[in-house]
Amino acid sequence: SQEFDFTDHSHRRFNPLTDSWILVSPHRAKRPWLGQQETPMKSTAPEYDEKCFLCPGNKRVTGGSNPKYESTYIFQNDFAAVKTDQPDLQVQNSGKDTLKDRLIKVEGVRGNCFVICFSPKHNVTIPQMSIPALEHVVGAWQTLYNDLAKQARDDHKPFKYLQIFENKGTAMGCSNLHPHGQAWCLSEVPSEVSQEFRSFDKYKHAHGADLLGDYVKLEMEERSRIVLENDSFLVVVPYWAVWPFETMIVAKTKVANIAQFSEKQKHDLAEMMKHLTVKYDNLFETSFPYSMGLHQAPLNATGDELDNAWFHMHFYPPLLRSATVRKFLVGFEMLGEPQRDLTAEQAADRLRKLDGDHHYTEKL
Amino acid sequence: SQEFDFTDHSHRRFNPLTDSWILVSPHRAKRPWLGQQETPMKSTAPEYDEKCFLCPGNKRVTGGSNPKYESTYIFQNDFAAVKTDQPDLQVQNSGKDTLKDRLIKVEGVRGNCFVICFSPKHNVTIPQMSIPALEHVVGAWQTLYNDLAKQARDDHKPFKYLQIFENKGTAMGCSNLHPHGQAWCLSEVPSEVSQEFRSFDKYKHAHGADLLGDYVKLEMEERSRIVLENDSFLVVVPYWAVWPFETMIVAKTKVANIAQFSEKQKHDLAEMMKHLTVKYDNLFETSFPYSMGLHQAPLNATGDELDNAWFHMHFYPPLLRSATVRKFLVGFEMLGEPQRDLTAEQAADRLRKLDGDHHYTEKL
Ligand SMILES: O=P(O)(O)O[C@H]1O[C@H](CO)[C@@H](O)[C@H](O)[C@H]1O
Ligand SMILES: O=P(O)(O)O[C@H]1O[C@H](CO)[C@@H](O)[C@H](O)[C@H]1O
Repeated sequence: SQEFDFTDHSHRRFNPLTDSWILVSPHRAKRPWLGQQETPMKSTAPEYDEKCFLCPGNKRVTGGSNPKYESTYIFQNDFAAVKTDQPDLQVQNSGKDTLKDRLIKVEGVRGNCFVICFSPKHNVTIPQMSIPALEHVVGAWQTLYNDLAKQARDDHKPFKYLQIFENKGTAMGCSNLHPHGQAWCLSEVPSEVSQEFRSFDKYKHAHGADLLGDYVKLEMEERSRIVLENDSFLVVVPYWAVWPFETMIVAKTKVANIAQFSEKQKHDLAEMMKHLTVKYDNLFETSFPYSMGLHQAPLNATGDELDNAWFHMHFYPPLLRSATVRKFLVGFEMLGEPQRDLTAEQAADRLRKLDGDHHYTEKL
Repeated sequence: SQEFDFTDHSHRRFNPLTDSWILVSPHRAKRPWLGQQETPMKSTAPEYDEKCFLCPGNKRVTGGSNPKYESTYIFQNDFAAVKTDQPDLQVQNSGKDTLKDRLIKVEGVRGNCFVICFSPKHNVTIPQMSIPALEHVVGAWQTLYNDLAKQARDDHKPFKYLQIFENKGTAMGCSNLHPHGQAWCLSEVPSEVSQEFRSFDKYKHAHGADLLGDYVKLEMEERSRIVLENDSFLVVVPYWAVWPFETMIVAKTKVANIAQFSEKQKHDLAEMMKHLTVKYDNLFETSFPYSMGLHQAPLNATGDELDNAWFHMHFYPPLLRSATVRKFLVGFEMLGEPQRDLTAEQAADRLRKLDGDHHYTEKL
């Protein structure tokens, strides 16, 4: 009888981080595409744009202006999703098991939101920045992490978890080309992160080991999903990837948060970020859109949290076939289960084979 | 001291169906939008398009041709994500608690995929169809549900769950304007659905009642999230909605699947689908994109499954502010937690106030 072929036959893979399944239908990559085309980013932007709210020295949306910063620059988001000061929410549970008690669960959320400009230059992106410049970005993240932890400790600010992320490209809802990321600091650990922590904890109880520590070992044995590697980090297309070219940068040895990074780890992370995003740009010869972010220990973590945390970054890029054709996670994916059209190993293989020089020419 | 204001202050709401939280930041609706603009659907398409793969009598992508159908028409998807025949996947667990045993979980998945043309007319959408024509659509879904259940029972086909859905509009990855939905039939219950079943089960054990039955009662008491109502169904913006104008059509009394519908329920569902989608189109005066789908009992459900199932439909529409500005669930939403910019009550209020005639003029 015929053999099961992972590059042709449908299967589901389990994601132990989020405790959920992904449907893989590798033969689907063959279907023709007649739907929406994305608009690739134009590369004709100037190094300084007088209309940009993020360029050095310029006015911001809500008044005030940016300093003439020379490397990175962090400021408070003018349209923060959470605020430090707001009234307490008193949740009334009648204690009588009413319908409301059963079904309405709500919590107030405080915090603060920041924007981090990666570079004073309006027209560069991470793959076009130097490794020392990217070390500055990692340094800015460290500073923010430490500052907010201190404010929580010393001034009782409602800061529990710092979610650092970047939305790159209009396809990922980014409304300003200027290279920047965000950091939302919340009084609660957000769902995705707390789900990961639950999984780490469960794994440790079952196997007496770190989930991501074991996963790093497994990937280094199998090698088929490794895209890049240096002394401190592995870049893999996770076995359970959802987005076509989704990757994870994962620390090879246990480190709970960026504040604990050595100088070497700081350099090594900057290097991986650069080399990975260069590969991304080269894949479809376009400025590759993605959302990416850091997962690490909460601020002022408890012993358990520190024990379970394992620094890693997720990259979620939407493109599937070319600079203009993306994967839509809609219909079946929203109602049923995420579905992908190529295997993680196929994606890793394509990324691995791309060379390291940044050399795309926009085809517009 | 100041009162907590749900229309201004940030809070998180719990979704008891998916067992997860949503961050609500109502003041965010005020920020300016400078990002990507969507392209609204053009309304100049002809009633019959000779190049359309779905129009009656036309050739299909992979050869063969459609009959000259006059109401609805179901055929097998030419690029099915799952197939009925594929080799068995033999999963090897060494039994020695190796890294692979711990971290690699995979299952083969079989099934079949169908396309359901809602109407022979190329240029209509659900809100433009008559209620009797929509009863035909519901009827086609019933037929498919019954047929596949029978094939599973009598011919041992690998059909366990039928996910019926529609992706409408290019913004939702739909590549053909012709009014159609899909149905993917799988040998496994997909993640979203099995999570709902786990929640129903937990709720029943805790309160001796149906989660959605109780939820219907609560919404009928509070009324602030009801958009539409008839004898058989309620249309609400759920308390825990993620998408800006997300809604749920939920049966007022227990019914496990569409196969169990009375003629009255069939008519009433068609009516709600029509009136809801008319409101959607009127909201931003555009052909409103969405993904929608049915959640119901698995095929040939077990006693427990039948007992827990409660028919409902989810509508996930992406538009936020206008025909061209959508909500992006990116960055923070992917790494942290879904976040919305208006409350469920505000969204319900806006939808409720729109009148019932279909009257948008495309602004292109
Ligand atoms: O099958 P279609 O309509 O070509 O494809 C569309 O719907 C599918 C099911 O929701 C998705 O997996 C695809 O990404 C989307 O483009
Ligand atoms: O804050 P921005 O960049 O304007 O907004 C973008 O990122 C946010 C956080 O991921 C999302 O909630 C928004 O939908 C998106 O448009």
